[in-house]
Amino acid sequence: MDFQYYMPVRIVSGEDCVKKNASLLRTLGKNVLVVTGKSSAKNGALEDAVFAFNMNGQKYTIYDRVPNNPTVACVEEGARIAREVGADCVVAIGGGSPMDAAKAIAMLARQDAPEGIFAHAITDDVLPMAHIPTTAGTGSEVTPYSIITNDEKQTKTSISAPSLFPVYAFLDGKYMASLPQNVTVNTALDALSHAVEGMLSVRATLITDALARESIRLLTGEYDSLLNANYTSQSRQNLLLGSTLAGMVIANTGTTVVHGMGYSLTYFHDVPHGRANGLLLPAFLAECNRKAPQRVGQICDALGMDLETFSKKVAALLGKREEYSDTELADFARRASVNKNIKNCIVHFSEEELLRVLKRSLGV
Amino acid sequence: MDFQYYMPVRIVSGEDCVKKNASLLRTLGKNVLVVTGKSSAKNGALEDAVFAFNMNGQKYTIYDRVPNNPTVACVEEGARIAREVGADCVVAIGGGSPMDAAKAIAMLARQDAPEGIFAHAITDDVLPMAHIPTTAGTGSEVTPYSIITNDEKQTKTSISAPSLFPVYAFLDGKYMASLPQNVTVNTALDALSHAVEGMLSVRATLITDALARESIRLLTGEYDSLLNANYTSQSRQNLLLGSTLAGMVIANTGTTVVHGMGYSLTYFHDVPHGRANGLLLPAFLAECNRKAPQRVGQICDALGMDLETFSKKVAALLGKREEYSDTELADFARRASVNKNIKNCIVHFSEEELLRVLKRSLGV
Repeated sequence: MDFQYYMPVRIVSGEDCVKKNASLLRTLGKNVLVVTGKSSAKNGALEDAVFAFNMNGQKYTIYDRVPNNPTVACVEEGARIAREVGADCVVAIGGGSPMDAAKAIAMLARQDAPEGIFAHAITDDVLPMAHIPTTAGTGSEVTPYSIITNDEKQTKTSISAPSLFPVYAFLDGKYMASLPQNVTVNTALDALSHAVEGMLSVRATLITDALARESIRLLTGEYDSLLNANYTSQSRQNLLLGSTLAGMVIANTGTTVVHGMGYSLTYFHDVPHGRANGLLLPAFLAECNRKAPQRVGQICDALGMDLETFSKKVAALLGKREEYSDTELADFARRASVNKNIKNCIVHFSEEELLRVLKRSLGV
Repeated sequence: MDFQYYMPVRIVSGEDCVKKNASLLRTLGKNVLVVTGKSSAKNGALEDAVFAFNMNGQKYTIYDRVPNNPTVACVEEGARIAREVGADCVVAIGGGSPMDAAKAIAMLARQDAPEGIFAHAITDDVLPMAHIPTTAGTGSEVTPYSIITNDEKQTKTSISAPSLFPVYAFLDGKYMASLPQNVTVNTALDALSHAVEGMLSVRATLITDALARESIRLLTGEYDSLLNANYTSQSRQNLLLGSTLAGMVIANTGTTVVHGMGYSLTYFHDVPHGRANGLLLPAFLAECNRKAPQRVGQICDALGMDLETFSKKVAALLGKREEYSDTELADFARRASVNKNIKNCIVHFSEEELLRVLKRSLGV
């Protein structure tokens, strides 16, 4: 089969990796815009980055107004500040929201997008970035995607370009030590969904499969930690590496049906992104199993369990499920059916099949 | 554990991938120096590249004087020609020798190295490169290494820098369709050695392990093709992908003891590089198994066989072995013991232990 594989981010992993590799940050520039959320960096990550900036003699400005599910207004504000202070590089600290916002900010700091960011053809002229994830789910630190709330289309829309890959990803699980249990579980489910959806993408290759299997092994290996809310520093690092590996997968495969359906739950009901994916993943797999049992069998091999066990285990992590009326689910199915991610799955999903998955996952 | 992972090459794989993705080559520059060997490109690869150059309106000059085990004189000549013709990019076509030479040429075309290339501190100013492998073994298309014959030290020496990574690697197994059987086997053994040595490197990580296992699966999956000299286009592509994946591994782990010992066989007896590795690999693994049985067990899992079976299967591929006197093997052991690759193995090898591996592999 014809394929391309590309993932140019230098991954730096291990405890205190930011401080130990401070000199790498110096290569980005002299004047840093730190992009983060109100609380995203209150876990030691900002202190470590500032330690590195001081060591390197770098100026820095902190932009910490990225909300959950970042908006166009936020990234425009961040870009304006980047221009005002003359930032020549960006360091993103946080979960998916700050990291995704940072990419759009790094781009808009150098490029005008008069037609709006969703229609803009992104050039290579983007401020160089380092990403320091403080949750273990999005994988944004190794992808070229920035997912921004698109109010016009009432969903989240991904912008993407090779120039949006960070230069560095620093992976230190210690920043997740005090992460709330619900965030830990939701982000782990997001990562798992990336790895599984990546294996069901039409763009899956033997390289992404190898990475996805390792990601799934790491994530399922921490199932008991997740269930019992009992994490060692090693479990935190494993969850983070599992998430990054899954990010390397979707950087090449994209996501598919689960993400395509999940965006509505987040947009209309503020269901956390990872939880939305976790809610939908088991029924999605069961549906895929009807048409692609061999491929789903390979995923079960990687999971180390059958679909029924998987469904029960995910349910135990999710607790009480959200429920929506048939009318609302039909609306979600209609919206998902026109999402471009749907076509990215090796199994074709009609609107009716999408609705079946939604009803099994979220029906009253 | 602390680790870094970096492999920024865009991999483009599939039949006719050079012609189908000709526009990628245009991004490299307007004036190409093609670096190849006398016969390295006589398999359709040069024609496809020229097709792309013409389509792109690129000028090109062919430097086809790279010998097996390239010398300093050769890369200096190539660099001189690159400067003379004003080349702004390099396309390497061939096996390890042209690809490794191309990296040194792309570097020397932009940098003076008055202290000699082995002592030179390589900067980022290197002509951008695309590599088109026409053998499936070296993995050079995805590594930052250039291995050049070092007559002063009577061995092969690796030069390395992040700027020596190609921009593109084009993987098309059709260029190997008429590769001689001995070259096919030797290069496959080289690739296998990369994957196995990578798993035994002190720098092995879960990312390189995932890639190594997939490489080993691909390569051992073609064992019958190799034994019977019976290749489909799919087997050629599998061997090539197995080689590239192993290259992604050693780009991050480096090679270890087998390569450290093998260079003497090549330097003093002209044993093809991959064959040298194949001759030494089983006894190396047996020796490692004494001190790191768990890790070697994981390698056996990936191989899908025990060490004894592996040894027999490799022997069947190698045919009649070379034999050397104890005196000569002692000299090889002494030389290997000071090779920097030796320290890169999780198992410490004393000179005596190196000699034991050499005697088991090549003793009279």
